[in-house]
Amino acid sequence: MIIDCHGHYTTAPRELEAFRQQQIEAAGRRTAGPSRANLKVSDDQIRESIENGQLKLQRERGTDLTIFSPRAAGMGHHIGDAAISLEWSQACNELIHRVCSLYPENFIGVCQLPQSPGVAPASCIGELERCVNEFGFVGCNLNPDPSGGLWNGAPLSDRTWYPLYEKMVELDVPAMIHVSMSCNPHFHTTGAHYINGDTTAFMQFIASDIFKDFPTLKFIIPHGGGAVPYHWGRYRGLAQDMKRPPLSELLRNVYFDTCVYHQAGIDLLTRVIPADNILFASEMIGAVRGIDPETGHHFDDTKRYVEGAPGLSAEDRRKIFETNAHKVYGRLSKRLAATGGR
Amino acid sequence: MIIDCHGHYTTAPRELEAFRQQQIEAAGRRTAGPSRANLKVSDDQIRESIENGQLKLQRERGTDLTIFSPRAAGMGHHIGDAAISLEWSQACNELIHRVCSLYPENFIGVCQLPQSPGVAPASCIGELERCVNEFGFVGCNLNPDPSGGLWNGAPLSDRTWYPLYEKMVELDVPAMIHVSMSCNPHFHTTGAHYINGDTTAFMQFIASDIFKDFPTLKFIIPHGGGAVPYHWGRYRGLAQDMKRPPLSELLRNVYFDTCVYHQAGIDLLTRVIPADNILFASEMIGAVRGIDPETGHHFDDTKRYVEGAPGLSAEDRRKIFETNAHKVYGRLSKRLAATGGR
Repeated sequence: MIIDCHGHYTTAPRELEAFRQQQIEAAGRRTAGPSRANLKVSDDQIRESIENGQLKLQRERGTDLTIFSPRAAGMGHHIGDAAISLEWSQACNELIHRVCSLYPENFIGVCQLPQSPGVAPASCIGELERCVNEFGFVGCNLNPDPSGGLWNGAPLSDRTWYPLYEKMVELDVPAMIHVSMSCNPHFHTTGAHYINGDTTAFMQFIASDIFKDFPTLKFIIPHGGGAVPYHWGRYRGLAQDMKRPPLSELLRNVYFDTCVYHQAGIDLLTRVIPADNILFASEMIGAVRGIDPETGHHFDDTKRYVEGAPGLSAEDRRKIFETNAHKVYGRLSKRLAATGGR
Repeated sequence: MIIDCHGHYTTAPRELEAFRQQQIEAAGRRTAGPSRANLKVSDDQIRESIENGQLKLQRERGTDLTIFSPRAAGMGHHIGDAAISLEWSQACNELIHRVCSLYPENFIGVCQLPQSPGVAPASCIGELERCVNEFGFVGCNLNPDPSGGLWNGAPLSDRTWYPLYEKMVELDVPAMIHVSMSCNPHFHTTGAHYINGDTTAFMQFIASDIFKDFPTLKFIIPHGGGAVPYHWGRYRGLAQDMKRPPLSELLRNVYFDTCVYHQAGIDLLTRVIPADNILFASEMIGAVRGIDPETGHHFDDTKRYVEGAPGLSAEDRRKIFETNAHKVYGRLSKRLAATGGR
């Protein structure tokens, strides 16, 4: 079984985007936004969006299950206030729940958190609980910069994050660290902000005691860990110079996905990071949609790179493709048993 | 001959730091700062700082020449105003000039620019001209974020940068893209801000027409190009999706250094980026000062990694260690001939 731990609902019916536009316009006017009760999307629309999109690619590429969440760039936590973020997050999460209910063998949910700049992350606990307890979601996406590229909130080591971490531990759900769209002209969303967010978060982990305080808390750093594996020597050296624990200790809590879109990158990732800490992911349909003229395959068809990486044993590949996901997403096995997922 | 294109004067006599402290305190009080005329450093102090530092390591590691600039984290463009930045930059650049005059065979200068947030980069032209024309410097360090981690200025594609680019082209000097210390608690200076700055700049290059407007402008992206080579597939794919020119065109203007502190990282860099676009560098004495317990050698002894990288021919190594530097730093050959450098 091949589990893709990083897929977003980038193909959602356009009614979702229209709803969001109404919300944004209302926020601009400072009037009441639309209620998600007015967002009408039929099951057939969902089926069409999935069967011509992610499910088609799952079949073509030979993957089985996607851990599925709302579009990351669309989270837009910096837009409007906490009430708007909550309504939007609930709308997005409910759509994910419907996808997972229609295709329980192929999709398992991860939620968007209703973060909002300047609002303590504890405000997200209710929606996290709803998604996990009522919808059977197995994780969340946590935005380390809800400002959208201004980076003017609190780092991940700040105590204001702790109630959310406590709830994650209690529910046994990990978070993928994932920024959203950039409103800063310096940062291209998928080419700079995403990767910088990953790198920044890892360095915050090195410098802080989060995992001393939460020994079982788990984070996935997507996009192959940003710049981290490529600069693994730098990070080992910085940790040593700073008299911080060796990175091997961080690897009890931190995992990297395989959203690295060329063979050389995956070769580096799998050479540097232990197979126990790598989770298969493609981010499809996501940041890069084209076909690589050098290979004739989609850039984001990362399964090929994992299969082609030298130095991985069959057991390593099984960990990356399947068993690590069960380890990191503590509720995954039970959820699959409940839904009849393979 | 082995040319290290990325060295900073991190071992400057403490009088420099004391001068800077006075400046910062004066800026805080909004009173006149000290004049650099009062900064007294003897030739013997400079000799001691260099002979026990960078020169000792040059000899131990078997490198010949360092392209040398003021401490990057120390540039602190966000501190005080443009007048303070100018006085500080001049003080730092004059010290570099003295190092290069004392050791003309071992050091060639690159200048710090007197950037200041909100001030058009054209203000830096005078100091750039002074350093190139009077001191024989061969390049400059350009800070894409003089705010120190707030990223609230203009991206590198903004027209306000163009007068500086014009002057660089006229003088035939490249710039190394290099941020300075971070005052943003999210970004560890050497572990996040530096690497993010590199990645961000490259993506700005992909998205802009800078090199259409300045076909001979040259930039070095340090720290192995940030996250870029590791995500080369992502960047090739993004450029293609965005209908931008292929990255091979960017490589007429953009070069990467070898400040990547482990063998696997250098192996990736040299596999992905053509040898014509890689410049040897160590950043010593810099961000990571310890010895790697896995190898018994300094993390930043990058010469070993370049020597150990498979797939590089002798000619490739010669390009990386020596000849590319002459290509990128257009004034280097003449300067070496003038100073008697080897």
